[in-house]
Amino acid sequence: MENKDEAEWSKFFHENKGPANLEESRDKISKFCDKHKDKKLVLITSGGTTVPLELNTVRYVDNFSLGTRGATSAEYFLRNGFAVIFLHRESSLKPFSRHLSGDAMRKWLQVSESGEVSVCSSHAAEVSKIVVEYQKYEDSLCEISFTTLSDYLWMLKTAANILNSHPNSLLYLAAAVSDFYVPTGQLPKHKIQSRNSIFAVPKTFCFTSEGPPTVELQIVPKMLSPLVSYWAPNSFVISFKLETDPNLLASKAKGALEKYKHNVVIGNILQTRKKEVWMVEKDAVTKIELTNEELKSGVEIEDRIVKHILTLI
Amino acid sequence: MENKDEAEWSKFFHENKGPANLEESRDKISKFCDKHKDKKLVLITSGGTTVPLELNTVRYVDNFSLGTRGATSAEYFLRNGFAVIFLHRESSLKPFSRHLSGDAMRKWLQVSESGEVSVCSSHAAEVSKIVVEYQKYEDSLCEISFTTLSDYLWMLKTAANILNSHPNSLLYLAAAVSDFYVPTGQLPKHKIQSRNSIFAVPKTFCFTSEGPPTVELQIVPKMLSPLVSYWAPNSFVISFKLETDPNLLASKAKGALEKYKHNVVIGNILQTRKKEVWMVEKDAVTKIELTNEELKSGVEIEDRIVKHILTLI
Repeated sequence: MENKDEAEWSKFFHENKGPANLEESRDKISKFCDKHKDKKLVLITSGGTTVPLELNTVRYVDNFSLGTRGATSAEYFLRNGFAVIFLHRESSLKPFSRHLSGDAMRKWLQVSESGEVSVCSSHAAEVSKIVVEYQKYEDSLCEISFTTLSDYLWMLKTAANILNSHPNSLLYLAAAVSDFYVPTGQLPKHKIQSRNSIFAVPKTFCFTSEGPPTVELQIVPKMLSPLVSYWAPNSFVISFKLETDPNLLASKAKGALEKYKHNVVIGNILQTRKKEVWMVEKDAVTKIELTNEELKSGVEIEDRIVKHILTLI
Repeated sequence: MENKDEAEWSKFFHENKGPANLEESRDKISKFCDKHKDKKLVLITSGGTTVPLELNTVRYVDNFSLGTRGATSAEYFLRNGFAVIFLHRESSLKPFSRHLSGDAMRKWLQVSESGEVSVCSSHAAEVSKIVVEYQKYEDSLCEISFTTLSDYLWMLKTAANILNSHPNSLLYLAAAVSDFYVPTGQLPKHKIQSRNSIFAVPKTFCFTSEGPPTVELQIVPKMLSPLVSYWAPNSFVISFKLETDPNLLASKAKGALEKYKHNVVIGNILQTRKKEVWMVEKDAVTKIELTNEELKSGVEIEDRIVKHILTLI
């Protein structure tokens, strides 16, 4: 079983090359870890991964994620004294900047007669708090971006290897990672045409004269297995399990923990994920739930999640 | 042929219901058009459409688009006296706010001792210009959002119908619209499981014990046909054709114009779309190209595109 798993993920990395910025990112993470060697360190993954359907990518399969869980959690880890490596989908939400969207800013900014641009008084206190916190924690935050599933897995492996030699490291895997992909070697070079006319028909995106077009996908090897056993056996590993069917969540979360033998699975349901989660450990399940009053007053469930994790490590 | 096309798009709207905010959006667009009845009016579509693979959507097929073309063009149409209906993908770039990303703002904002939050002097002039312009044009801008392909097509049909009775209306279709979809009735309710265990296997996302999983997609009916013939026959219609293979672009752009008999196809190549485009009209093709110096100095090709359109209408 171990050998089969190993063969699968070795094959994946053999068939799908690393991103262009892999070496540069490895250096950046190494230096960041050295600088913060006396702190608690967490690698947070955040946002969805894309699965390109063409080499010159116009179309791709994506996973729903704005990156809210990861970006919010990063803020609470920083407030609790961690140095944070934030491995996020390019263009998904980031810590602190998530509160300062362009839509908000184009409404909140005002220009004085002397040309000074400032935040209007009704939002100044709120924005001030964010800016001051960002400046306080900026040096404890290392941001690395990915877009595709393959880039994500390369970066995860690279970062996990580095964190493994750090005495107090946590992996907090909040990214929404695709279960399916199309190997690079099977991708058509150009944008797929909507009628198969002058094109050789690519195997992965198949038109027949009879039936509808179909996309053939491969199942992504489960990377939690080598992560826990080989890449970061010394780290405390927390994964997420998102479902839309509440009847499946408990068994899926417990199943993942038994299979991969890591430390915590945080179970959540798509529709209620900001209100309730289940922290599934080997011998305990803790439900964390916000009241409607807490939600209204701006309490974020990631505050409670991080506090709970602090009791476990 | 006409009848076959009509049957196809009627079937699409029959099988895929409109979004919850359709009536509200119709009202908003109607009022906006009434208010600006003496102005030139443009409907700009912008951003990619999603094709959900589940009803409670975790996974979807997406089209690459940040919405830069649409958001930038909207700014130049506003500067040239148009009232702009901006039909955009939720969370894609918007006019003016595209310059004020959270990443930039968390770096550019500073807090004074008295608690005032202002933009640092090195970026004040640039941000000031954007804020002043946004305030100037805010009332001439009507923003409507969509996420899925189906929502987009419902909104497009609704908006086009309203604009058709306006004497000077332009449709500028810059959204990256999927050619493929899965009809709502064929979607599985919940997140697809990566191994077919306890689940009934949904037809559209098919696992077999032998081969790889496959997704069956339907081809989206070409909506330019009813748009030009029925929904907005009085409007000036501009569509975009994006390719990755330069050898295909000219024939595809000309082919679209001949087929749908609208006014302009703007052809562009994914890799060079900010530097060069081809304006394809019935009897002329005009290439618009920026020099490297112009690109470096911040000239945007949408400025030239809008100026060229002004010579045609």
